[in-house]
Parts: sequence; structure tokens; C-alpha cells
Amino acid sequence: MNPPWLLPEYVEDILPPYAWHAETLRRKLLDLYDSHGYDLVAPPMVEFLDSLLTGSARDLDIRTFKVMDGLSGRQMGVRADMTPQAARIDAHLLNRQGIVRLCYAGPVLHTRPSGMTLSREPIQVGAELFGHGGIEADIEILQLLMAALKLAGLCNARISLGHVGLFRALSGGAGLVPEQERDLFTALKTKDVPALEQLTDALESTWKQAFRQLPNLYGGVEVLADARRVLPSLPGVSKALDDLAGLMAVRHEIQLAVDLGDLRGYGYHNGAVFAAYTGGQAQAVALGGRYDGAGAIFGRARPATGFSLDLRRILDCVVEVPRRPGILAPSSDDPVLRARIAELREAGERVVLEWPGQEAYRRESGCNRILIQADGAWQIQSL
Amino acid sequence: MNPPWLLPEYVEDILPPYAWHAETLRRKLLDLYDSHGYDLVAPPMVEFLDSLLTGSARDLDIRTFKVMDGLSGRQMGVRADMTPQAARIDAHLLNRQGIVRLCYAGPVLHTRPSGMTLSREPIQVGAELFGHGGIEADIEILQLLMAALKLAGLCNARISLGHVGLFRALSGGAGLVPEQERDLFTALKTKDVPALEQLTDALESTWKQAFRQLPNLYGGVEVLADARRVLPSLPGVSKALDDLAGLMAVRHEIQLAVDLGDLRGYGYHNGAVFAAYTGGQAQAVALGGRYDGAGAIFGRARPATGFSLDLRRILDCVVEVPRRPGILAPSSDDPVLRARIAELREAGERVVLEWPGQEAYRRESGCNRILIQADGAWQIQSL
Repeated sequence: MNPPWLLPEYVEDILPPYAWHAETLRRKLLDLYDSHGYDLVAPPMVEFLDSLLTGSARDLDIRTFKVMDGLSGRQMGVRADMTPQAARIDAHLLNRQGIVRLCYAGPVLHTRPSGMTLSREPIQVGAELFGHGGIEADIEILQLLMAALKLAGLCNARISLGHVGLFRALSGGAGLVPEQERDLFTALKTKDVPALEQLTDALESTWKQAFRQLPNLYGGVEVLADARRVLPSLPGVSKALDDLAGLMAVRHEIQLAVDLGDLRGYGYHNGAVFAAYTGGQAQAVALGGRYDGAGAIFGRARPATGFSLDLRRILDCVVEVPRRPGILAPSSDDPVLRARIAELREAGERVVLEWPGQEAYRRESGCNRILIQADGAWQIQSL
Repeated sequence: MNPPWLLPEYVEDILPPYAWHAETLRRKLLDLYDSHGYDLVAPPMVEFLDSLLTGSARDLDIRTFKVMDGLSGRQMGVRADMTPQAARIDAHLLNRQGIVRLCYAGPVLHTRPSGMTLSREPIQVGAELFGHGGIEADIEILQLLMAALKLAGLCNARISLGHVGLFRALSGGAGLVPEQERDLFTALKTKDVPALEQLTDALESTWKQAFRQLPNLYGGVEVLADARRVLPSLPGVSKALDDLAGLMAVRHEIQLAVDLGDLRGYGYHNGAVFAAYTGGQAQAVALGGRYDGAGAIFGRARPATGFSLDLRRILDCVVEVPRRPGILAPSSDDPVLRARIAELREAGERVVLEWPGQEAYRRESGCNRILIQADGAWQIQSL
């Protein structure tokens, strides 16, 4: 039998002092989103499965833990992604006609990790914008993601831009059936070149070349000119490249790149998509993009774009977090001491009571000062 | 078929502006705990079932959603309570010999609501103190709970104090077998007087009277004197009444009462326990108490006491939350405007971009001011 303190694989505690660091980041990110007009929502951890796996988000299915609802006898799922929840709230609950900006922060659960180093419990801190199909909305979301990465101390992050609409336009042009399109999407998403070659082998040369070129079309803004040259000139392709040109024009210290083969994320995206990476990590710290119409199942197909960061991925990039040094205080009924302690706490200090017998464990307490009675007053001394 | 936006019973979204209010409360509470030396931990949403249902916390079993871990083939549970998780972290991970203070905030899931008006997804914001068996620790936790209630604006809350040790002492004295003890505990906990009478009917008169008196022993500090008179004088009974006298001596604007029949909470408690109630509500907003030895299964049986509030219960007490008024700003590339927007956001304002065509929906935006170019500068005007 395994020891009871053992956690499942890819499941982790966040311990002190990292948990407080995560809390601080969460606050800063939500404050940032709030300052841009994003209203906080807190959707539940469980919903009926139908609602969680909306529309084209069916590939969330295998990631979602299922539980039986003893009250209704229906199957529920533990959320694996909060974006469809935000789309439900926009479509059904808020009932606004204009633009709706929502943000959220919370854990999601995955039946299996999506990468070798990933947790099965990402902590999503995201922002979503509903009701505007123009590139201005994608730009606002991209700029907000950049500001969020900067706030999280990830100035050396880079953002990779792709476009699902471009892929869909090529699939339509090539006349792919849904199954072919899905397999090809997966091959590109997983960068499986042999599968890509096999799946495109029987296609007419224009489309074969186009699909096979996609993984090579990455780099700076010049890639867009290359793409216009080598890809068939379909309206959907031009629109996608125009969108990407608009996004590449955003100026920020965080570096942008085009990667037309980067089709990460869930199947509900249909326009410009982005993924943020840091230093040597192969897994994204943030994913986002356009997913128009995801709210259709809830009664309103609105334009939508957004992103979410994984707070755990950001913590992985943190080298060291110091413990917050406190002040030890003797446990006493002296009202003067009690008032002094209350005053220090009010001023933002951490004051920790020490009871008789605890002196031996002072090093563990993380305190670097102590309240001492001297000259008739309670004074702070170094430990 | 039910509409896909329908949520399961006793499962709810927290919508704007309430979600931001909940976030603000969460922050204030965690800051309060932090100022008292409680280190934040963030345990996972799922663990192996063995770890979640530690020791005497077996009555959590029926409340816990079970899922299969596809990676290990073992059964996992979605946490229904974070206290056993904090005990695991104290016992196994931190390995400190002195006092350990931990706090946490997060959702837990229940298969069924524990009351007619309760959510199946309470949001626990709690504090736990490990390593000290003296009444000082219970007092610190009680005072922290009082400060938390005050911070949450629940000054008219009242706290009811009970003692599981007193019940256990009576059970031991009466020579009850574990099954009898459990049934009697449940009868008292659910205030089921007919069951209480039936279960005690065959007991010797001393014990019969003692158990039947418990539900009547509630009120002010004078109840403790009544209890000393009517209950058998066992060491465990005296110790419990001494503990309660120590707690009743705590002075605070939040009212304290003794209720020796109030055995709420989970089965892992073994000493002084408390429940906080607010005006009219039958369900507690906070539960806590002593649960020595809950970490035994993880390798260390340490003294422990703590409490947690349910953020959703606190929100239920909130009458109205105003939406935070923002400033609308035109979408423009003017660098002066962009700098002005950044400066306002930095200063804590919410600035919301308005794109052409959105003017009709200004009322929805929640903004009460707008940035207008006038006299060669960007000025804030009322809307």
C-alpha cells in the first residue's frame, strides 16, 4: 500500500512561501483585468456535462473528470476549462447587447496532463471579450496578455501567433471532409510531420504544398509576405494574414512571432490564436485566441476572444520566494501589549504569538524580530 | 432535454458585481490570517481517497465525489473539506517541531448540500493551528474567527461553543460501544429528540439524564455552572467545562454562547468546537474546533485547532453590491491618450475602451465618466 500522504501523479500542493506568491500574482492579474473593464465571474467547479463540452469544445471531453449527480441522476463534469463557462455566462445570464468583458481565476482539473511537465490542475487566470468581431478586440486581448506577462515578471516571454481561420480556409478550399480536417489539425497541432505528409499525400498539389508549408511558416512579420506568396489566395487566407499583420503591429517589449503551424489550444478556436512561452519551456504559460460562436449552444452565437494564463506555469518560472519575516510577541493579557500588536498588524506587519515552551522553535517561526518590554514600553528588537 | 445553460441544483455562478465583492473579502481574510502568522497553502482539488478521508473524518465519505485516476488506477476524491489537507501538510511536508499556522482559501465540492439553503460548492477560507494543545491555541483561533467575522461585516454574528470531549467523556463513563456512541452523536448533532430518548432509554439513570440534559444546556456563561451541577463529575467533563470557561472569557463585540448539544461539523473533532451564525440563518457561516491527532495517518499525531468560513454564506448576507464605475475611452492610436489611459489605470481607475458602433450600449458598460478631447487635452467628463 502506498503511504497516505502520497499525491497522485501530476497533482501538487503549493506550499509556503510559494502559495502566498501565487496569491499575490493572482491579485495583481485580476486588478489588471479589472482596470481594463473586465468584470470578475466565479463559475462553479461542476456543471452538467452538456454545458461544459459546448459546441466544438468536444475535445475537452477526454480531459474532463465525470461524476454522477445524485440529485438529478445526470452526468456532471468537473470543469477542465473556464472559457466555455464564461461564454455561457455572456450568452445566457448577462443578456447585454454591447461588449461584455469578463475575467476569472480558479483551478480546473484534467484527467491527464497535456505535457510531460504539466500539472493536472492548472490554475486559470483569464480574460474574455464578447460581442466584437473586429481586430480591435484581438488587439486589446493581446495587449492585455502582454501586460499580464510583464506583471508576472515574464518580460522575456515570447508570444507566438497562429490563425485557425487560415487552416479552415485551406481545408475548405481542398474540400476536406470533417474527419480529414480533424486528423490534419491534430497532425499540425502535435507537429507530427510523418502524419502530415501521409494525410496530404493524395491531395492536389496546391493544397498538398500549402498544408506542408504551414509548419515552416514561422518567424517575424516577413513570414506574412512569404505566406501570401506560397499559399493559395483564398478570401479566408487573406483575411487571416491581414488579422495577423494587425496583431504583429502591436508594439511591446514582449516579442511577437508568427507561427502558422501553431494550432494549439482547444477545438473551439476559429480565428487568430496565441500562445506565450518563456525561456526554455516547451509548454505554453498562456493560451488564447478567437472563438466566435461558442455561446451558440446557450442561445447566442457572439463573437469572442480571450486568453488565460496558468498560474502554476508562472510559479515554475520563479526561482526563489523569500518567506515574509514576522515579529514574535509574547502571549500576555497586558492591554498595552495587545494594543501594540493590533496596531502593528493593522500597519501590515505579521505578528506571531509565542507561548511558553516554544522558545526552542524560534528559527522555524520565520520571525526576525521580537517584541520586548524595556524601559516601561514594548519595543521591537532584532532576533 | 433540459436547456444546456441550466446548472445542477445547489450549484451556482457568482456573477458581477458579487464575484468582485467575494474576491475583496477573500483578500481581506487572507491578509488578516497572514498578519497573525498563518502561512498560506494551496492543496490540490483531488487526492487519493485514503488521504482525503483521514482518521475519524470518515463521515466525509458520502459527501465526497469519487473519480478514477486513469494514471494509477486508484480511486481519487474531489476534496469536500480542506482541513484534512492542511493536517497532511503539517504532518508530512513541513516537518516543523514547533507551532505551525496555516491558512487556505478555495472551493470544495459536496455530493449533496448539508442544508436546504446551502451550496454544494462552499468556498472555504480557513486557518488552522498545529502543535499546541493548550487553551491558548483555541483562544487564538476563536479571536481570529471573531476578527474575520467583523472584517466580513458580520458584527451581529453570534458564536456558539460546544465541546466534543465532554460528549466523549460521558460516552466513556456510560460504557457505550462505538456504534451506540456514533448514533447518539448523530441524534444530538441533528437535534433529533425522539432518537435521543430512544437511544438513552436503557442507560443507567445518571447517564440517561446527562445525555438528555445536553440539548437544554445552552445560553450564557451561567450554563457552565448548571452543567457542573447536573452532569457527572468526570475528569473529561471538568476539563471540557474549564476549556469552555476559558473561551467564554474572551471579550469581543461578537456575542458568545455555550451550547453543549451543538455537535456540528465533521467527526474528526475532539475538543472545544464552535459555529458562527448570523441573523435569521439556521446554517453556520463558519465552523471550527479542536481535532487533535487528525495527522496520525500521515505519520504525526499533533494537537490541532482551526476554523473555516464559507465565503458563499457570507455573500448570502450581503444585501447589495454596487458596480465599480469606470471611465469610457475612445479607441485611438493617439499616444497622448494612451499614456493618459495607462496613468489612470495605474492610479486604480477602471478605463474601458469604446469602439465605433458601441455608443448605443453605454448604459450597459457601467461607466459614469468619459475621456473627451477638449482644449487640446484629454479630459474626464461625466456621462
